[in-house]
Amino acid sequence: MLVVHVHVRVKPECAEAFQAATLKNAEASLKEPGIARFDVVRHAEDPNRFVLVEAYRTSEAPAAHKETAHYLQWKEAVAPMMAEPRSSEKYVNLHPSDPHW
Amino acid sequence: MLVVHVHVRVKPECAEAFQAATLKNAEASLKEPGIARFDVVRHAEDPNRFVLVEAYRTSEAPAAHKETAHYLQWKEAVAPMMAEPRSSEKYVNLHPSDPHW
Repeated sequence: MLVVHVHVRVKPECAEAFQAATLKNAEASLKEPGIARFDVVRHAEDPNRFVLVEAYRTSEAPAAHKETAHYLQWKEAVAPMMAEPRSSEKYVNLHPSDPHW
Repeated sequence: MLVVHVHVRVKPECAEAFQAATLKNAEASLKEPGIARFDVVRHAEDPNRFVLVEAYRTSEAPAAHKETAHYLQWKEAVAPMMAEPRSSEKYVNLHPSDPHW
């Protein structure tokens, strides 16, 4: 399992629109066979900060995700909302094991 | 749901011992009624970096966790393994909704 944490900080006036667009993208992404989880969390103290926790079943799944219509629509919609460039970190799962994601 | 991301960087010679102690703690923590998830991931490019993703069902659950024997044992075991102080960020879940964690 490849787990990607995407860190986002949006312009304050865009936070609710970003949330709506991202939840729509999460729902659609979960229908991809290569995606086990697509969690979206919002910072408890800074409502302009979000983390997307994306769990991919294979090393090819991230590239397949980036070709989907829902990802491309999300990418275009949120581009002007960013307060700074997104950053991401890649992890491998230790717990739970693959079948439990 | 309160989701806590704990960021850890350990001394290189301690990485495997940290992993073993943390997996043991994760297994025990998942038996706590207030804990929905206790994921452990390791950085794909820096094997000395880990993130613990802890999902708590209530605002009281983190304090209850810190009173358990398994947490206290873990805390003591990993203290000398840290390359720098741990940091944590608190989030609220947007997706999935509470019953799906």
